[in-house]
Amino acid sequence: MKRTLGVCYYPEHWPETQWAEDAARMAALGLTWVRIGEFAWSRMEPTPGTYDWAWLDRAIQTLGDHGLKVVLGTPTATPPRWMLDRHPDMLALDKDGKPRGFGSRRHYCFSHLGYRAECAKIVSAMAERYGKNPHVAAWQTDNEYACHATTLSYSNAAKSAFRNWLAQKYQSPDALNRAWGNVFWSMEYSDWSDIGLPNLTVTEPNPSHVMDFRRFASDEVVSFNRLQTDIIRKHSPAPIAHNYMGAVTEFDHFATGADLDIASWDSYPLGFLSDRIPAPADHKLRFVRQGDPDFQAFHHDLYRAVGRGRWWIMEQQPGPVNWAPYNPDPLPGMARLWAWEAFAHGAEAVCYFRWRQAPFAQEQMHAGLLRPDSAPAQAFGEAEQVARELAKMPDVGTAQAHVALIFDYASDWAWEIQPQGRSFSYFWLVFHIYKGLRRLGLNVDILPSDTADLSAYKLVLAPGLFTLSEPLKAALAAHQGTAILGPRTNSKTENFAIPVPLPPNLPGLDAKVIRVESLPPDVPVPLAEGGNLLHWREKLEATATVTEMAEDGWPALVSSGRLHYLAGWPDDQALTRILHRACAAEGVETDPLPEGLRRRDTATHRFLFNYNPVPAEWGGVAIPPAGVHWTEL
Amino acid sequence: MKRTLGVCYYPEHWPETQWAEDAARMAALGLTWVRIGEFAWSRMEPTPGTYDWAWLDRAIQTLGDHGLKVVLGTPTATPPRWMLDRHPDMLALDKDGKPRGFGSRRHYCFSHLGYRAECAKIVSAMAERYGKNPHVAAWQTDNEYACHATTLSYSNAAKSAFRNWLAQKYQSPDALNRAWGNVFWSMEYSDWSDIGLPNLTVTEPNPSHVMDFRRFASDEVVSFNRLQTDIIRKHSPAPIAHNYMGAVTEFDHFATGADLDIASWDSYPLGFLSDRIPAPADHKLRFVRQGDPDFQAFHHDLYRAVGRGRWWIMEQQPGPVNWAPYNPDPLPGMARLWAWEAFAHGAEAVCYFRWRQAPFAQEQMHAGLLRPDSAPAQAFGEAEQVARELAKMPDVGTAQAHVALIFDYASDWAWEIQPQGRSFSYFWLVFHIYKGLRRLGLNVDILPSDTADLSAYKLVLAPGLFTLSEPLKAALAAHQGTAILGPRTNSKTENFAIPVPLPPNLPGLDAKVIRVESLPPDVPVPLAEGGNLLHWREKLEATATVTEMAEDGWPALVSSGRLHYLAGWPDDQALTRILHRACAAEGVETDPLPEGLRRRDTATHRFLFNYNPVPAEWGGVAIPPAGVHWTEL
Amino acid sequence: MKRTLGVCYYPEHWPETQWAEDAARMAALGLTWVRIGEFAWSRMEPTPGTYDWAWLDRAIQTLGDHGLKVVLGTPTATPPRWMLDRHPDMLALDKDGKPRGFGSRRHYCFSHLGYRAECAKIVSAMAERYGKNPHVAAWQTDNEYACHATTLSYSNAAKSAFRNWLAQKYQSPDALNRAWGNVFWSMEYSDWSDIGLPNLTVTEPNPSHVMDFRRFASDEVVSFNRLQTDIIRKHSPAPIAHNYMGAVTEFDHFATGADLDIASWDSYPLGFLSDRIPAPADHKLRFVRQGDPDFQAFHHDLYRAVGRGRWWIMEQQPGPVNWAPYNPDPLPGMARLWAWEAFAHGAEAVCYFRWRQAPFAQEQMHAGLLRPDSAPAQAFGEAEQVARELAKMPDVGTAQAHVALIFDYASDWAWEIQPQGRSFSYFWLVFHIYKGLRRLGLNVDILPSDTADLSAYKLVLAPGLFTLSEPLKAALAAHQGTAILGPRTNSKTENFAIPVPLPPNLPGLDAKVIRVESLPPDVPVPLAEGGNLLHWREKLEATATVTEMAEDGWPALVSSGRLHYLAGWPDDQALTRILHRACAAEGVETDPLPEGLRRRDTATHRFLFNYNPVPAEWGGVAIPPAGVHWTEL
Repeated sequence: MKRTLGVCYYPEHWPETQWAEDAARMAALGLTWVRIGEFAWSRMEPTPGTYDWAWLDRAIQTLGDHGLKVVLGTPTATPPRWMLDRHPDMLALDKDGKPRGFGSRRHYCFSHLGYRAECAKIVSAMAERYGKNPHVAAWQTDNEYACHATTLSYSNAAKSAFRNWLAQKYQSPDALNRAWGNVFWSMEYSDWSDIGLPNLTVTEPNPSHVMDFRRFASDEVVSFNRLQTDIIRKHSPAPIAHNYMGAVTEFDHFATGADLDIASWDSYPLGFLSDRIPAPADHKLRFVRQGDPDFQAFHHDLYRAVGRGRWWIMEQQPGPVNWAPYNPDPLPGMARLWAWEAFAHGAEAVCYFRWRQAPFAQEQMHAGLLRPDSAPAQAFGEAEQVARELAKMPDVGTAQAHVALIFDYASDWAWEIQPQGRSFSYFWLVFHIYKGLRRLGLNVDILPSDTADLSAYKLVLAPGLFTLSEPLKAALAAHQGTAILGPRTNSKTENFAIPVPLPPNLPGLDAKVIRVESLPPDVPVPLAEGGNLLHWREKLEATATVTEMAEDGWPALVSSGRLHYLAGWPDDQALTRILHRACAAEGVETDPLPEGLRRRDTATHRFLFNYNPVPAEWGGVAIPPAGVHWTEL
Repeated sequence: MKRTLGVCYYPEHWPETQWAEDAARMAALGLTWVRIGEFAWSRMEPTPGTYDWAWLDRAIQTLGDHGLKVVLGTPTATPPRWMLDRHPDMLALDKDGKPRGFGSRRHYCFSHLGYRAECAKIVSAMAERYGKNPHVAAWQTDNEYACHATTLSYSNAAKSAFRNWLAQKYQSPDALNRAWGNVFWSMEYSDWSDIGLPNLTVTEPNPSHVMDFRRFASDEVVSFNRLQTDIIRKHSPAPIAHNYMGAVTEFDHFATGADLDIASWDSYPLGFLSDRIPAPADHKLRFVRQGDPDFQAFHHDLYRAVGRGRWWIMEQQPGPVNWAPYNPDPLPGMARLWAWEAFAHGAEAVCYFRWRQAPFAQEQMHAGLLRPDSAPAQAFGEAEQVARELAKMPDVGTAQAHVALIFDYASDWAWEIQPQGRSFSYFWLVFHIYKGLRRLGLNVDILPSDTADLSAYKLVLAPGLFTLSEPLKAALAAHQGTAILGPRTNSKTENFAIPVPLPPNLPGLDAKVIRVESLPPDVPVPLAEGGNLLHWREKLEATATVTEMAEDGWPALVSSGRLHYLAGWPDDQALTRILHRACAAEGVETDPLPEGLRRRDTATHRFLFNYNPVPAEWGGVAIPPAGVHWTEL
Repeated sequence: MKRTLGVCYYPEHWPETQWAEDAARMAALGLTWVRIGEFAWSRMEPTPGTYDWAWLDRAIQTLGDHGLKVVLGTPTATPPRWMLDRHPDMLALDKDGKPRGFGSRRHYCFSHLGYRAECAKIVSAMAERYGKNPHVAAWQTDNEYACHATTLSYSNAAKSAFRNWLAQKYQSPDALNRAWGNVFWSMEYSDWSDIGLPNLTVTEPNPSHVMDFRRFASDEVVSFNRLQTDIIRKHSPAPIAHNYMGAVTEFDHFATGADLDIASWDSYPLGFLSDRIPAPADHKLRFVRQGDPDFQAFHHDLYRAVGRGRWWIMEQQPGPVNWAPYNPDPLPGMARLWAWEAFAHGAEAVCYFRWRQAPFAQEQMHAGLLRPDSAPAQAFGEAEQVARELAKMPDVGTAQAHVALIFDYASDWAWEIQPQGRSFSYFWLVFHIYKGLRRLGLNVDILPSDTADLSAYKLVLAPGLFTLSEPLKAALAAHQGTAILGPRTNSKTENFAIPVPLPPNLPGLDAKVIRVESLPPDVPVPLAEGGNLLHWREKLEATATVTEMAEDGWPALVSSGRLHYLAGWPDDQALTRILHRACAAEGVETDPLPEGLRRRDTATHRFLFNYNPVPAEWGGVAIPPAGVHWTEL
């Protein structure tokens, strides 16, 4: 397969006279893909029911004429102002009950049936018109589902849909009462219409209530997306993608991914480091112009799983962005490094966002490949270099990883609902373990929690899974390799209750979590061999072998053969030791890397990426800051 | 009197088949009391007006059959879902005007007359049925009034009741205008219906307005509680308690206490340390698994006063809880220490919360004496030890303290309304002084602010009292001993104005507060003899003797004989010196204790409690971590 | 001109029997002015349409009888309670849509036409009655516009007025769509009634939308004020003032100032230091009882510009205030220092707030010249000293400054809307540069952004101007002196878009900002000559001379002759070097001052002010803490 580059473009933002020149420059730069259309509803349907396709026809034609392929986005993330006149109640309500209004984007509730019908209409019209267009080579549904925390809506539309969802699931209020334990505080319901959304309660609502609401809300995204994919498929053979975001877990991406052909994501390494990653100040300082050395790779591996192997970067940061608390300029070379890192992790395409910096409206301070005055910006030359390098590089393929790490959206909801300690986060626990693996130079495959086959992997990690699915239980039972579960793994029933017998309930491993504690960040639990548990520890009653012991005598890691249970959140030192030991046991070669240097093996090449602002050395090779180094395997 | 143990139990949470075994194990453990019923309204009255008492009859009978005594709770903290259909406007509104809805607990406005009538009905039905039941040996009204900040409601029901309360108090809007100083910003009212609740104003409302609202809101709790006690007393001879919380001051507990026979409180030492106590990080770290060494004792002494000598712990933390920012596991032995400390302070009973950890709903991560799988949890054995020890110990009685500390709920409201400096808090000022006294090994009695007789005390402290009540003024005038008042004592009129002549207006002590200042925590006011004033200092114009002087020449403590006025918030060093001097003057023996070690004398024994995570030594005795040591006096 | 002292007084707060004695003491103290009336609407018009002027007649007469001059305030900041019955929708709504209700002050929306009519009525009645009164020698409109963040209202009245304002400005929705770039996210409008206020959007609204809303809101303040000045001028020859606040930029003070004769402001140095100034902890600690050494001077210079030379302090802090997070007592002498500093900067009058501390209502903890018991407070003697000193001092006049600093309210709105980095603030950038100038001992004139004549100045600074106005462009082109612009200067079009060609677009200076970055406070950009850029840096493509270079090779200051562009926010070290160099080039003498010591030259005298809590030395003169020193020039 040929890896390709692309760009995001908004013909409606520019005079039509400029389109041909833009297209010519894109082609000359070596780009293959141009994504268009996803915010242009007010130009496609200026008044209700009246379409204007002429401009879009010409835009696609112009791009096609220059040999470019179009990714066509459905515009449902930005309904025009007139939509509100037709559906005044289509807005999502926030947790406080306030409507989230018009004037930016994503101002819709996923559960609003009237709005869904409008979406079906515009998507149908687009799919009919462009489904067979030779230049439309891929589709994108909507834009960044969940961005700006838009999955959860506390509207009447959502309430009504949630009640139906519950009725379908539980069949009777009594069954629901039992499943949720509503007797607890006289919270029992006698009718579906009694049930509200879990906001605005005096103190915390029942976690089972919230968990079902989170599942429901995720399902709403899935069915909203499916509404569009079903329509597009009727008219077009082109593959369909959605562009996900970083560290966004509000809906189950595996479930939406099942209806799509390609997973893609929008990679803004500096924005994410500034805005989302809870790293210490010295780490943020060191990587301020490069991004966290693992955050992008983690999402590459995650979305490769979501896309069942097919994945893209749909939006790649090219320079400073506008939306993070601080928006530094990337180190020269990073726009190249980020692209190559994506390709090394298997990306089919990397599209920079955006072609030309828009001088107006919300994102005017967001860099593009071109400056507002159409001169090349910093990333232009770097993209050009990547294009040249790609042209010379054979397909690097994808290597089979020896290590699998399970990622489960529902578990993130569960522990967000019930962190038990302020510093416990499922997402950051998984990422912490991912970083530990990467620091050892390992390739990692991320797998969903209903994975049924682990036979390709020598080492499997499944931290913090709310429940163990039946397929995964079976796969673990059949697994010939090392598995490390815990902490919190399998600690709840599907209904969000503590199971009896007590967790983790792992066949063949006699261990019970008899007590858990959450700890302030400055209260470590020292381990006998060095390092600590942090944030979270469990006290085990176990006959299984104690592989790691806390200094206070409680087991920290218990083992039965190749099955291990980790009773806490290990710090870097403890984690590295545990992973080393597991790799050694399975004959998986490790390669401890210096800070900020990362490695990825493909089928044919070994890639090294230097995220440091200073040169790094590895295996006798000096790699400059922001440098990429590859060797054939 | 025999000190006893008990437990909180929820028969409605468990299969009826399990009740007998549970009761047998409780009895075998040595428990006396079982509190039940307080959240079971949806099971008592599943649909409006239709009662189901059969299950509760059998539960009480089962417990009684095993020799256990029942504390029966009224279920008014958790009205069922159907209540909202009958009284849609019964919800409290928060300060922003948002309803505090169904789905957890305490979702009612104290002022809603319809809800009050429903409460009267269910309490009447319970009292009629169980008032003479031989196993029902005590009652509890509602549950944790004010918990989740539920005293203040900004509902229409509250507004209407507040207007009536004001009309009753002031008789005419003009009188109210004068009392509040409403001329200040043209805030004058001409009709009761003009008056709103003091929320949602552009900037701060008139403090007199807020103060009356706080008094009103407290009165509403008192009358809500009295509605229940009046009914219960008609039908039952058993004593009535309510279970208060820690560091909760939203209503006047002395006033509710006047209608009750027993004060009880819910003691969660680790939750409180994590969540409520504004202590420095090193203190929180040292006591993370034990709790603050004075917080429990303070409340024991406070509630002994509220209960006019009769008090219990109704809920005692047995292991990790679920609701604090961080929820560590108590050090082994703390569940015993906490119980003995309560007994040493005069508790009649200590009930652990709860019997078995509930695997479902909001508090599933809250430990019990039993694990969810019914095996004994850590505290089970400690409770057993306490039961054995109690059986061998004669009644320890209560010693008369030499030191009294005044605590006044209204003063906490006043300084919350008008802190004047961000770090001024009445509650923490009083607690700070309590800690100073305890570090000197002193027994302390806490007294209400309308105390009329101080003759039993050699030393009386009355910091921060908003106003001096007439009885207290008379008691101070008659007092043969040392009294230390200030800062801020008697600094306002009843109407929340500065009195002229200027405060503190103490007969016999010529001193006027002519200026006050609040200070950032890093701006100390050094004292000539060492130590500092912090947070708050007053400048005095005085002819009284200057006993402590600030380095800048202003008096810090002025004295006239045994009456002293303290012109600021002393730090530990200054406080200790001042207390030492006062004790020495009155011949009160002090015993400076090492960090984390605390002492309490009863009528017959001296108890020592080691709150440290390391051994402590005192008087040649080594006391292990979490250790309790007693000797006969 | 004779500089004078005054005081704020509220006859309605005190028994009429006290007025004469108060007036006599004011006169004896040496006061000239008494401001009254601004909160007394409920006494002027107790019920709608019924006026009671008798008390006010007598109050004015009493003051006049003692030789005092009255500043009469219109009471429109505190509409009485009955106003709400007449105009229930007159309240402003906050950003969340919640009404900002009755119970304090400033509870009105500037756009409410009904309320405006009521204001016109009461102002007309006052102006008719007192316009020719010989004792009413000045007027004040309303009180502290914008205080408590009251400029922006999200009410229906505001929405309707905003639509009209937009219609007037753009003439067609299409023109507005183009100006704002509404195509960006399908935000196009087809009718004026489509347009909402820019609150409650899902993510950030269009900055052009917000900018126009901010301009509109400022215009509403201007027209609200003009409504009153137009009426007063019809009936009274006395000058009209308004009392502005510190660090308040919500509306364009130059624009309101154009309708007034005098600018005045309310100077609370300790409150501002505690509450508003983002200074490091050690700075706040050092100046905790004195205030920031430059904050007052900055506002003096600013309001001298707003008042076109005529300005007052209408409210001067006399002791501790009640409203800041912490409220310390001023160092003895500061109430004198602050007054003299104001006079040195050209104040015509300084009025202390307030005569006697009110013992009741919201500001009871705010000191006055008298204590609540009518005894003199600390500041009384200091005011007396100033009065004596003034009597002996000839008019000090005003010196022409060599340095001008441009201040522009709209730029503060712009960068608040689009900070791009969390630590970027226009106001604090300008203040930072002002401090740099003052540390060099320079007199500074502040000028509005439409200044058309710079000929009086050797050095002009114009940092961060959103746009360069046509007059200022012309003035800069004609300027014979040094001008330093940037960062961010002229970086937007009037419509809030990035201009092409790229900024700063300065004739004669070939430099383009091709990329900007915002930086966390711990990420400095070191300069080759020492010091750093902080918070913000711009990358320039320039042929202009590079006067300052960053260590990474990018220009930091580029120059063409005497025109300079600064490509970032310089730290103290870099700023001082740049200012030194500019002053040296223009022959402007500098005088680097020790910390906390400040200097101001008038036409006749050199004044030195010691803001330190310790003595300072300068030119062989020792100045005590809080000391003022003057010498004839």
